[in-house]
Amino acid sequence: VDHFGFNTDKTFKQRYLIADKHWKKDGGSILFYTGNEGDITWFCNNTGFMWDMAEELKAMLVFAEHRYYGESLPFGANSFKDSTHLNFLTSEQALADFAKLIKHLKRTVPGAKNQPVIALGGSYGGMLAAWFRMKYPHMVVGALASSAPIWQFEDLVPCGVFMEIVTADFRKSGPNCSESIRRSWDAIRRLTSTGPGLHWLSEALRLCSPLTNSQDVEHLKDWITETWVNLAMVDYPYESNFLQPLPAWPIKVVCQYLKNPNVSDPQLLENIFQALNVYYNYSGQVKCLNMSETATRSLGSLGWSYQACTEMVMPFCTNGIDDMFEPHSWNLKEFSDDCFKQWGVRPRPSWITTMYGGKNISSHTNIIFSNGDLDPWSGGGVTENVTDTLVAITIPEGAHHLDLRANNAFDPTSVLLARSLEVRYMKQWIKNFYASLRKKH
Amino acid sequence: VDHFGFNTDKTFKQRYLIADKHWKKDGGSILFYTGNEGDITWFCNNTGFMWDMAEELKAMLVFAEHRYYGESLPFGANSFKDSTHLNFLTSEQALADFAKLIKHLKRTVPGAKNQPVIALGGSYGGMLAAWFRMKYPHMVVGALASSAPIWQFEDLVPCGVFMEIVTADFRKSGPNCSESIRRSWDAIRRLTSTGPGLHWLSEALRLCSPLTNSQDVEHLKDWITETWVNLAMVDYPYESNFLQPLPAWPIKVVCQYLKNPNVSDPQLLENIFQALNVYYNYSGQVKCLNMSETATRSLGSLGWSYQACTEMVMPFCTNGIDDMFEPHSWNLKEFSDDCFKQWGVRPRPSWITTMYGGKNISSHTNIIFSNGDLDPWSGGGVTENVTDTLVAITIPEGAHHLDLRANNAFDPTSVLLARSLEVRYMKQWIKNFYASLRKKH
Repeated sequence: VDHFGFNTDKTFKQRYLIADKHWKKDGGSILFYTGNEGDITWFCNNTGFMWDMAEELKAMLVFAEHRYYGESLPFGANSFKDSTHLNFLTSEQALADFAKLIKHLKRTVPGAKNQPVIALGGSYGGMLAAWFRMKYPHMVVGALASSAPIWQFEDLVPCGVFMEIVTADFRKSGPNCSESIRRSWDAIRRLTSTGPGLHWLSEALRLCSPLTNSQDVEHLKDWITETWVNLAMVDYPYESNFLQPLPAWPIKVVCQYLKNPNVSDPQLLENIFQALNVYYNYSGQVKCLNMSETATRSLGSLGWSYQACTEMVMPFCTNGIDDMFEPHSWNLKEFSDDCFKQWGVRPRPSWITTMYGGKNISSHTNIIFSNGDLDPWSGGGVTENVTDTLVAITIPEGAHHLDLRANNAFDPTSVLLARSLEVRYMKQWIKNFYASLRKKH
Repeated sequence: VDHFGFNTDKTFKQRYLIADKHWKKDGGSILFYTGNEGDITWFCNNTGFMWDMAEELKAMLVFAEHRYYGESLPFGANSFKDSTHLNFLTSEQALADFAKLIKHLKRTVPGAKNQPVIALGGSYGGMLAAWFRMKYPHMVVGALASSAPIWQFEDLVPCGVFMEIVTADFRKSGPNCSESIRRSWDAIRRLTSTGPGLHWLSEALRLCSPLTNSQDVEHLKDWITETWVNLAMVDYPYESNFLQPLPAWPIKVVCQYLKNPNVSDPQLLENIFQALNVYYNYSGQVKCLNMSETATRSLGSLGWSYQACTEMVMPFCTNGIDDMFEPHSWNLKEFSDDCFKQWGVRPRPSWITTMYGGKNISSHTNIIFSNGDLDPWSGGGVTENVTDTLVAITIPEGAHHLDLRANNAFDPTSVLLARSLEVRYMKQWIKNFYASLRKKH
């Protein structure tokens, strides 16, 4: 449970998945998914790229679950009980788990010992893959960090960039689409200023729990905002089911309903409902919209909320001009107080850059940072080469770690190119590993 | 206090020393001593090399005290109370302290912000310097790791190599010297098999507390063993006072008394006394020899004992053939049980190699590993170049981190060469830093 202290010798069971169908003991490799904030089976099922290249790289696939997510709970049902039990939920502990797991596999799986390991991950898992290569370069020959916003900390990038990208996605996906959304906030404010308005809006949006006060209205706006953000993340070119079941290019579908911003408030909100319905009810089976859920339950939102309140302090802001949202500045004090209220801990906003180097990472090697231009997280990502071996790959038509997904007939050429380049780098790392192994003997 | 957990926000005062007499804001540098297991003023006073090169490198000198040593006690007088209070005494916490201190200095000392920092340290401090460069390469452009036994873990080197080097030092320092010591153990055993023998030996060795039982005899042998080990570490070419006040080449002086192994047991032990007296009573002021102290009190032996029982698990062994000691195999189980008895913790012998890479460190850059051939710790050190930028410097006539000591008229040429090579590397790192800084602007 605690790699960094010796007062407790408590252990826990970490879940990991292995596929060795295409693995070759002779000249093979190990692709190691550095699990992030969710159930590992879900990541496993949404990382088809690893499965697609397994044969070519003669690779064993390993998917390691991140502690405090899925079934890898250090204190079972008590894991989220209080800050004492949560104390071991950090990226450093997770990286150490990965290191020990790789050591364990190399020791126990015959033939794995002298094979190169490559770390792969998407989103927070991509940050972990990159950081793992940075901190444990003796464990992995390289890392593919897909959609990894390692610079979404402190003032490394402007706090507004994330929401600007979300806005751009909607702007590009249909005429007046982002403008309709921009106007919706005032419409909501005006409509909900009266009791009957609250009631009407609750009905119009088919909310499972009706709005009763101004706090509910704030919650509503946050929920709608998060919906647009999530759509930007999963704006994939084909029908998919990552955060929710969705049609191909879902923002385009959403924007079909948001063509006209110059309508009455009620009409605008009816349109917003249609748009939300694309995200929450693509199946057509949903009876009402539930504001307490915005994405798959496979994500561990509780654990992530704690991590965001401790290490993963990502400043976000909006100004309503460069983005389609209500203006919100980044308020660390308020954020910290909220964290203290919810978890009894306070964030340390500069810790991640102290630990992982911020923008000063050029002494590391063999990391691919891939980003999709549609993905709001690309704003905090590495989108230009840092050195010859810290390379950036951008996918103009890509949303959140599209490159990690399975090959699809509707994939744009840019992601096919990205994947093939990624495979080429990985093959080079593997080749170099075996070359230096031969030199030693 | 805890960089790796958020359950406590407790802080403590870390002591550090700064000298800026020769520091230049324009083109200067920062030499950062990564403090080890002792009072930082003592290390500061025994690291003359930094003072000697300050002017040439236009350097600010910083000496950072390691937590749990000197005055940097996280829980004041309670710091060593139990395993709960000791829980934050690890190398990882210490490295994080250094990282935060450097950040603090760069933020608060005008002119320091855009200057290259170089980590330096000796012994455990040398390991920390190397590890700091490995784990925080964004913080330091390079590291001088002097007499740093980073491979004295697990089975990276044979467990007997340390004592073999101690033995070789005595063998080389006078005829029959190591042989006399080898025979002394049996002589002690024979002499102490009777009550009068115990009494006689206590008198002969001028022990402050007389030997009363076989446990005392074991303690005596351990104490004598440690004395020979310490002499090997500080076998400097000139009069010095590191672990104890000593003459130049102290082992040669010791060996003057150990020329003849073919004498009676009492005579041999009288000779051993004379030899010990060189180490414990060079001043001539000591009335009796105290078995409870073997070295300066500036070293934090309590803290180190805990560290050795947790992370710093160094296997040592002797066989009595390749070395001059009684045979002792390395027994992890016994060691672990002793640790549990003393501290309530158990060692994790493979953790350090998991964390810091063991012999697989070639992806790092800009570390100088210097070792003296007389130094028993060189057995666990890096004594051959790993790559072009992970370089080894050996000093044939050097004991424990002789290169870090101040220039001295009696310095052998080999250490002068080592120091000048070290300075050359450091200047190159500084030059490269400023070159890449200019490229950015």
